[in-house]
Amino acid sequence: MIRVGIVGGTGYTGVELLRLLAAHPGAEVVAITSRGEVGRRVDDLFPNLRGSCDLVFTEPAAAALAACDVVFFATPHNVAMHSVPALLDAGARVIDLSADFRLRDAGIWSRWYGETHACPERLAEAVYGLPEFHREAIAGARLVACPGCYPTAIQLAFAPLLAGDLVDRDQLIASAASGVSGAGRQAKLDNILTEASDNFKAYGAAGHRHQPEIEQSLGDLAGGPVGVTFVPHLLPMIRGIHATCFARLKTPGLDLQPVFEDYYADEPFVDVLPAGQHPQTRTVRGANRCQLAVAVPQGRETAVVMATEDNLVKGASGQAIQCMNIMLGLPETNGLAHPGLLP
Amino acid sequence: MIRVGIVGGTGYTGVELLRLLAAHPGAEVVAITSRGEVGRRVDDLFPNLRGSCDLVFTEPAAAALAACDVVFFATPHNVAMHSVPALLDAGARVIDLSADFRLRDAGIWSRWYGETHACPERLAEAVYGLPEFHREAIAGARLVACPGCYPTAIQLAFAPLLAGDLVDRDQLIASAASGVSGAGRQAKLDNILTEASDNFKAYGAAGHRHQPEIEQSLGDLAGGPVGVTFVPHLLPMIRGIHATCFARLKTPGLDLQPVFEDYYADEPFVDVLPAGQHPQTRTVRGANRCQLAVAVPQGRETAVVMATEDNLVKGASGQAIQCMNIMLGLPETNGLAHPGLLP
Amino acid sequence: MIRVGIVGGTGYTGVELLRLLAAHPGAEVVAITSRGEVGRRVDDLFPNLRGSCDLVFTEPAAAALAACDVVFFATPHNVAMHSVPALLDAGARVIDLSADFRLRDAGIWSRWYGETHACPERLAEAVYGLPEFHREAIAGARLVACPGCYPTAIQLAFAPLLAGDLVDRDQLIASAASGVSGAGRQAKLDNILTEASDNFKAYGAAGHRHQPEIEQSLGDLAGGPVGVTFVPHLLPMIRGIHATCFARLKTPGLDLQPVFEDYYADEPFVDVLPAGQHPQTRTVRGANRCQLAVAVPQGRETAVVMATEDNLVKGASGQAIQCMNIMLGLPETNGLAHPGLLP
Amino acid sequence: MIRVGIVGGTGYTGVELLRLLAAHPGAEVVAITSRGEVGRRVDDLFPNLRGSCDLVFTEPAAAALAACDVVFFATPHNVAMHSVPALLDAGARVIDLSADFRLRDAGIWSRWYGETHACPERLAEAVYGLPEFHREAIAGARLVACPGCYPTAIQLAFAPLLAGDLVDRDQLIASAASGVSGAGRQAKLDNILTEASDNFKAYGAAGHRHQPEIEQSLGDLAGGPVGVTFVPHLLPMIRGIHATCFARLKTPGLDLQPVFEDYYADEPFVDVLPAGQHPQTRTVRGANRCQLAVAVPQGRETAVVMATEDNLVKGASGQAIQCMNIMLGLPETNGLAHPGLLP
Repeated sequence: MIRVGIVGGTGYTGVELLRLLAAHPGAEVVAITSRGEVGRRVDDLFPNLRGSCDLVFTEPAAAALAACDVVFFATPHNVAMHSVPALLDAGARVIDLSADFRLRDAGIWSRWYGETHACPERLAEAVYGLPEFHREAIAGARLVACPGCYPTAIQLAFAPLLAGDLVDRDQLIASAASGVSGAGRQAKLDNILTEASDNFKAYGAAGHRHQPEIEQSLGDLAGGPVGVTFVPHLLPMIRGIHATCFARLKTPGLDLQPVFEDYYADEPFVDVLPAGQHPQTRTVRGANRCQLAVAVPQGRETAVVMATEDNLVKGASGQAIQCMNIMLGLPETNGLAHPGLLP
Repeated sequence: MIRVGIVGGTGYTGVELLRLLAAHPGAEVVAITSRGEVGRRVDDLFPNLRGSCDLVFTEPAAAALAACDVVFFATPHNVAMHSVPALLDAGARVIDLSADFRLRDAGIWSRWYGETHACPERLAEAVYGLPEFHREAIAGARLVACPGCYPTAIQLAFAPLLAGDLVDRDQLIASAASGVSGAGRQAKLDNILTEASDNFKAYGAAGHRHQPEIEQSLGDLAGGPVGVTFVPHLLPMIRGIHATCFARLKTPGLDLQPVFEDYYADEPFVDVLPAGQHPQTRTVRGANRCQLAVAVPQGRETAVVMATEDNLVKGASGQAIQCMNIMLGLPETNGLAHPGLLP
Repeated sequence: MIRVGIVGGTGYTGVELLRLLAAHPGAEVVAITSRGEVGRRVDDLFPNLRGSCDLVFTEPAAAALAACDVVFFATPHNVAMHSVPALLDAGARVIDLSADFRLRDAGIWSRWYGETHACPERLAEAVYGLPEFHREAIAGARLVACPGCYPTAIQLAFAPLLAGDLVDRDQLIASAASGVSGAGRQAKLDNILTEASDNFKAYGAAGHRHQPEIEQSLGDLAGGPVGVTFVPHLLPMIRGIHATCFARLKTPGLDLQPVFEDYYADEPFVDVLPAGQHPQTRTVRGANRCQLAVAVPQGRETAVVMATEDNLVKGASGQAIQCMNIMLGLPETNGLAHPGLLP
Repeated sequence: MIRVGIVGGTGYTGVELLRLLAAHPGAEVVAITSRGEVGRRVDDLFPNLRGSCDLVFTEPAAAALAACDVVFFATPHNVAMHSVPALLDAGARVIDLSADFRLRDAGIWSRWYGETHACPERLAEAVYGLPEFHREAIAGARLVACPGCYPTAIQLAFAPLLAGDLVDRDQLIASAASGVSGAGRQAKLDNILTEASDNFKAYGAAGHRHQPEIEQSLGDLAGGPVGVTFVPHLLPMIRGIHATCFARLKTPGLDLQPVFEDYYADEPFVDVLPAGQHPQTRTVRGANRCQLAVAVPQGRETAVVMATEDNLVKGASGQAIQCMNIMLGLPETNGLAHPGLLP
């Protein structure tokens, strides 16, 4: 059994890692840390885990973590970058779910996250944890930087269009929406039910931290700079991301269905729906799956790609486990093949 | 007091007309019809009206309706067009909340609504009921065709950009979302709570009936054809429309805040938010108001306009009453000035 | 016009007072205070009020408040009791929406609210602001203590049974549920959408602060001590309280419909539904109304009374305005007659 | 592998059986029937099953079903009773999730379900599928009648009190609430999001079909007739049942925590929470688990028991699989041990 450590287990990506790993046939969580909850049983904080998890939160002690085969950082940004170098030096493998190692350029990172990067010299070593783009590199990586929840859906939506050079790459538009769990398990006024329920709004329209990550990664795929306008919205629900992506076709009216089906034919966790269907967030709830559909309204020049995922699974903890499976040579679908919870 | 008749009062636009008119100082509902509920008290169907409404549903008899000063059609499409001509001939004023008289071209109407238009010869007589565009024509109209809920928000979002010739008019993109009440009070499987709650999806991505209406009306405003890509989505909530509209600026980085503030400076029901704020559907819940904000992400070439409204008020029944006020020479804000219900 | 002051206007009962008073024909808000938001426009905090409210939050200065005809305290408990005595001495009328003056016994108050009462000598002067029980006393009061949201619904449900001596008064059971707005506009983890949505739970089952208030007031009505078991629950929605109340009939199978209809025949804001209907929270959303229904399952010995109200209206701000109307000699329904927002 | 057939697979208990059995190590669904969807792929109707289920809906042919080791009826009431006798005669084991075989007395069944029972002579043969009460009988059964969703929670709540003879058994009160999925996958107006969302109401207060089932089964446990007042409510959410149960203690103030912990000490799927906690529906979402807590408010004479379950899992499909495991000699927790989905 693979020995897993989790740093920062009191957030939603932490409890989701625990839920998913509880059903994983080849991995076992042996340590989970939280500065604020040291000594408390995990299932006292998360009663859904009663009967599934006997762990107690501990201090994030380096020695215990270094003894793990792999350590997940389920922390806010600006935490992992302070601890990861030492862990790597001690021989551990690290999968960071936060933003600390996603951007190659420490200057861009600082501009968007408002702080100096603590270990810019380790950025080059991080592999971007989107298996559909970087499966081989992940297999050999010691440090994986998992993509943000929005970027996962948006990149999977645009990839077939950019890889095939089918669209103007400087006019990509992504209008995406997330359930409130994307904001984490935090007591913020904006997220209380009375403010966030029965409501829909955009936020960060003038610029959101996930934008440079999307442009960096899609630029790699396209082989040159891309221009992405990204507007996120807050959905009155718990889980799920939906991205509606627009691009200008070089060939108006092109039939994109086979393009998408071919591109993702061998991917276990990317599911191109039959022509005419629309993906829904609820059909991937709890599942490590991105469902996609594509349309060209009125047969004109604008391609519309719709992508859904569970932001806590394929957008975070599930994808992180997918990376773990790849890094450690396990079957990629281990612990991740269950269907979504519907209704 | 203005005598009001309502045809088809068992849907959500019907009950919303009753709620709003109950607080209108100069109008009184004297007849409300429903083929399916003849003889039933209105407040038996809608207990929120107990104490406010003593009416009983009647047959849609022409004589009673013709005796009204104004008749609202709160019916599905393909109903009004069969009854309106006779009512107009009898001297009544008609405000149609359905799609029957929105498109000038009966052929286009038939293509999108799947049936032959029953009175194409009356289409020219209908005035499009968007007061912000056609206030004077509405004042003199005998037949007003109220805009669809999506088109109201989307047109108010794009209007300042097109009127000022600030954007490429063939690349307009509207990604919009509606609460489930937009689908009406109908027992459809897709709309039951277990299917529509905790979910988000696009629908009609390949083409939606509101698209030609938007292109017709914005084309009038722009003085030439426009190209609109419109993708609607279904929100897991009851009321509210949010439109996120994208257009390519002729002058990258242009400051659009004064453009919008100037354009709507005198409009009582269009509210441009201070720079940096984002409109929310909940702040216009129950109110006859469209709130707008505009951003130019990263100061580049794409303008993002966000617009919210209550689909049943500014997107339907409230706007219809606004048109009534204008048609009958009442102060335009009568019965419509109350704030939204928050939280 | 009556000059109204509001202390503590940043919570939900505050914004609801503003919404309701904006449509009140005989009252005007002239001062609204908030220690935390001094100098900020009210409609910046609550954009639903844009166009309806030009006020700015001020310090809670005694002089300005004393100049008002009536001052509402929309504060948490333990605030009003420190300021109210001076205001009363200055000649103001006060309507307190908090718990500070609801209990006659300062010792019981301290036991449930965990602090010493600041002015026990003023408790006797407070009139309990449930107009259906104490209309005349309210008319002559200078200090009104509005009931809690749960107690309003529960007392209106039990009153006809106790007044008629129809049930065992020591075995009253109230299983009630509230939307999250009952917990106020506060950033608490338990109330964020991801925790409170798609969920239902009881809380305070071992004892809740509203229990002694219910027993005190129903005891007055019954003419002797009553025993109430009260269990509140948290509903995954914004507004609304539903109380399901059980009592043991002295006469099994008694027809309670006429009992309830007679008891509330003259009440403008208590609405007994026709036999067989069930009240819903949504039909009173935004309205100052309590809807009631009664059943005797299988014609046995247990009476079931169901009561709904909007916790922010009949359960708080609407009832407070109802009390204001009575205190100041206005028609009791002024500003409160509008129907609920449905759907 | 156990060969499983499912009759009536287009409802929510059907898709939930498929989701759960997809992860079951010892069972395989080989046939799924639906008169209305013959020939359609199951994962076309339920896209959450794409990749997990290759089945196609078939006619409910007796031969194919009789070849299964066990057949689940996931049908509305009044279906199974017409087909089950022949299947039993053919040697199949049947687990009926509907109400057809729950009541021993065909007359009572007819009174509540409005139709004559089709096979009253087989009622005696059915074992009531609540493993916590009837584990041994289920092990030997050929026909199991799974309890209703409400009765499961309510019976598990009252059982320790009745088994210990701790309460008056003629004054049991159960105020329970269910998510909308309890009403099935049906296009009914009452269940569309605009009617059922942001709302709470009781229904069937004068008498609900689950009441006689509860009285029959609790009467067996208590060793004599019990009197239950049962009022169900509709929650504005998808999954989950919460029962709040009241009973009059023979010994006021009795400490019930050890009573409940002892009673359920060996049950894998009934979880008594630590004293002072309240069960939530969300912590059992998707899990085959009932969580319980007990309180005695103010140490008086009324016991309050709170019970939560997922109505589609422990309240239906999960419990049915639990019965299957017992009937077929598999470990009882097979396929059912996963944690709930939180948040």
